[in-house]
Amino acid sequence: MDYGIVLRVLGFLLVIEAGSMLLPLGVALYSGGPDIMAFSVSILLTAAAGLGGLRFKSSGKVVRYREAFLIVALGWLLASVFGSLPFVLAGSLPSAVDAFFETVSGFTTTGATVMANIEIQPQGILFWRSLTHWLGGMGIIVFTLAVLPALGLGTMRIFQAESPGPAPAKLVSRVDQTAKLLYGIYLALTIVQIAALKLTGWSWFDAVTHTFATMGTGGFSTRNASVAAFRSPYGEWIIALFMFAAGVNFSLYYGVIHRKLGTLLKDGEFRFYCGTVLVASLLIAVNIASLYQGQLGKIIRDSFFQVVSMVTTTGFVTADYGKWPELSKMVLFLLMFMGGCAGSTGGALKQIRVLLVLKAVKRKLTRLIHPKAVLPIVLGDSPVSEETIDDVLVFTLFYITIFVVVSMLLLTQGMDIPSSASAVAATLGNVGPGFGLVGPTTTYANLTTLTKLLLSVCMLLGRLEIYPIIALLLPNFWRRA
Amino acid sequence: MDYGIVLRVLGFLLVIEAGSMLLPLGVALYSGGPDIMAFSVSILLTAAAGLGGLRFKSSGKVVRYREAFLIVALGWLLASVFGSLPFVLAGSLPSAVDAFFETVSGFTTTGATVMANIEIQPQGILFWRSLTHWLGGMGIIVFTLAVLPALGLGTMRIFQAESPGPAPAKLVSRVDQTAKLLYGIYLALTIVQIAALKLTGWSWFDAVTHTFATMGTGGFSTRNASVAAFRSPYGEWIIALFMFAAGVNFSLYYGVIHRKLGTLLKDGEFRFYCGTVLVASLLIAVNIASLYQGQLGKIIRDSFFQVVSMVTTTGFVTADYGKWPELSKMVLFLLMFMGGCAGSTGGALKQIRVLLVLKAVKRKLTRLIHPKAVLPIVLGDSPVSEETIDDVLVFTLFYITIFVVVSMLLLTQGMDIPSSASAVAATLGNVGPGFGLVGPTTTYANLTTLTKLLLSVCMLLGRLEIYPIIALLLPNFWRRA
Repeated sequence: MDYGIVLRVLGFLLVIEAGSMLLPLGVALYSGGPDIMAFSVSILLTAAAGLGGLRFKSSGKVVRYREAFLIVALGWLLASVFGSLPFVLAGSLPSAVDAFFETVSGFTTTGATVMANIEIQPQGILFWRSLTHWLGGMGIIVFTLAVLPALGLGTMRIFQAESPGPAPAKLVSRVDQTAKLLYGIYLALTIVQIAALKLTGWSWFDAVTHTFATMGTGGFSTRNASVAAFRSPYGEWIIALFMFAAGVNFSLYYGVIHRKLGTLLKDGEFRFYCGTVLVASLLIAVNIASLYQGQLGKIIRDSFFQVVSMVTTTGFVTADYGKWPELSKMVLFLLMFMGGCAGSTGGALKQIRVLLVLKAVKRKLTRLIHPKAVLPIVLGDSPVSEETIDDVLVFTLFYITIFVVVSMLLLTQGMDIPSSASAVAATLGNVGPGFGLVGPTTTYANLTTLTKLLLSVCMLLGRLEIYPIIALLLPNFWRRA
Repeated sequence: MDYGIVLRVLGFLLVIEAGSMLLPLGVALYSGGPDIMAFSVSILLTAAAGLGGLRFKSSGKVVRYREAFLIVALGWLLASVFGSLPFVLAGSLPSAVDAFFETVSGFTTTGATVMANIEIQPQGILFWRSLTHWLGGMGIIVFTLAVLPALGLGTMRIFQAESPGPAPAKLVSRVDQTAKLLYGIYLALTIVQIAALKLTGWSWFDAVTHTFATMGTGGFSTRNASVAAFRSPYGEWIIALFMFAAGVNFSLYYGVIHRKLGTLLKDGEFRFYCGTVLVASLLIAVNIASLYQGQLGKIIRDSFFQVVSMVTTTGFVTADYGKWPELSKMVLFLLMFMGGCAGSTGGALKQIRVLLVLKAVKRKLTRLIHPKAVLPIVLGDSPVSEETIDDVLVFTLFYITIFVVVSMLLLTQGMDIPSSASAVAATLGNVGPGFGLVGPTTTYANLTTLTKLLLSVCMLLGRLEIYPIIALLLPNFWRRA
């Protein structure tokens, strides 16, 4: 193991984090809040640790699998540890476990909160909380579209086989150039959403923080009642549409920029994603209609908003879906497992995996009639390799297994089954709110310490597509090559 | 499609069914019950239909895939339709849907009942109800160990790859000889269990009916409170051990008969099955200990009995597990998905599929460290083909998909989520009782007609390993070759 390169990259990451904390410090200074000192000390500690890491040198070799896993897993972990400093130092979340949970939830763009009362927090703290979503979203885009494929893991191989447009690998040859391009798109969408929310009358502060949480598909709000607190139908539509946009594979936007809208519309995963949103919204709209006494506009807005919020794994709330009929709750619960498209900032299984599982089942059914037929699974115009199909099936079942095992562990902590199952689904899928004890009108504040730690692990597992975290737990990982 | 052979085989099946009804008719005559006429008429109608079918002739070709699917699916369906006649004619279940549900539940060895009060039923009816389990069990053994492998489907290929002993295919060359051998084992176990229950003081009637339900892993009892009604600790242990035995791959007993106990003990699936039972029993025993105020004997008996009852998909009840802690309920719920070994009378996914899924996940983890390693999945001494692994992964995910979709459909029928989810898991897995509205102290009697029909389909889907039923729904199935 080349620990030099690991420490160096982690150091670089912490320096960036320290730099990012200058923004909430600015907000704290502008609003004259009590959190100025907390951010100042956090920046100094994080920068010091980062500079310490930068002093290490690589042994000169290329980054291998093991180093990459370690960097990714420790990167998210360390960013969360140092990112939790302002919460502790400002007294917002005095418990270290609570502060860690909140920051993991931020960087993994989950949006599950342990803050019982959000509205009494200083503005700098709220800004930092939302910023962790936006930074996490940036990290995810690079991770899923540049790092994972370099490791031969994740969804990129699927994407390459499937994209009818120019594949990013050909598009720009180097990882950092790919990253720059995707960041440009991310930044552009962010600016447009902030402007749109501002134009409908939101304050700069609310527009920026909610845009951060939207683009990262995070879901932290500055209000206890989430987006519902603003009573702003236009704002809800804007956020819903940008959540939807954040759930699309970012590399597809490259085609859109180059005036090839066909790239987007022909994409198999994108079409499936649109279908999922449409069908789920309609199902819920019909199911909740009687509850809303025929207010058609509100029925459509609430069902579409909540469906997009869940499927993109954002977790914003405009309606107390805990009081919706059982069928609607079940639909939302299932959406927590699906997630956005691969290469988006959304979490969970991703649309493409669900689509490929369904295609694998369909192929099996065809083989019942034609047992010896050769039937490659096709996405767009290209066949998907059997290895990829196998990977998707195993990943999906592994995901379900982790969901089941952790749900059972939470039952030992005094939770009921709906609460534990939805808490795990909502953290493993990086959604945020669930049902019951962790429903839309409650928080994760009252859970036991062990539960909070387990759910923090779930957030990291889900965000990093399981394997980079699990790999570190394998004895073979640490053995000398 | 060679409809001649289909009708002929179905006719043969109905003649056997009519013959089987002579047994409950005998019981009705002996007990002088009000159900004598019901059985007489049912036998005449069933025999007439059967003889009608026997008049058809095959066009002389071999039985192909399509004919086999049709025979299997229609066989279970027709047997259930004619088998429900006594329930309707005796007035035990006047509704045709209820009688059909009960008979499907019997022949699929599920054991879910719509009889609100079992103890007021005539003895002939109760005997027939239990006999359907035993006959269904016989059907399953031939179906999974002889018919499915001939179709290139199901678990037999796995078994062949895995069995360290002589494979049945070599053992006896023809399907009917294999069947005779397995029936001998089934019959022997049945006789031993009846004798054991009789020796502990059970009446002949109770011993025979409960043995039928045990060996078929069905679960119908002659008492409302199921096995708990007998207050017989020895009886409970006997039933628990024979449930366990009925959950073992029957072809493994061939080795045992030939004094090669190693065949059983070396079998990968059997060891995994033992491990599942042991771990689940211990977990539940610890979890319920405080509830039982330290009555160690009863804790062990109840936890072992209920675990074996669920994992073998029998569904007998000796304790109101609906009042157990959430963790114990979750363990039982998961066992409903696992099921017994392949080639047993148990339903659900089967131990071997769960084992292979776990092995596939483990292989993926090893590949994280050694990405290019060739790692065949091994069971016993033999590698399992990649095609089989792929089949198992797809089947498992298809099973879960059906579970989710039907659970959602039941929510439209006014059921809550725990009731609908457990009702589908318990019927798809051929278990019987679930939780909530369909818990251990209630029945399926009060569900809507549509719910009962959907759950009947689930029982058939689960029992026939999904594909033979689904194949009939594919348009291609009916197209001319």
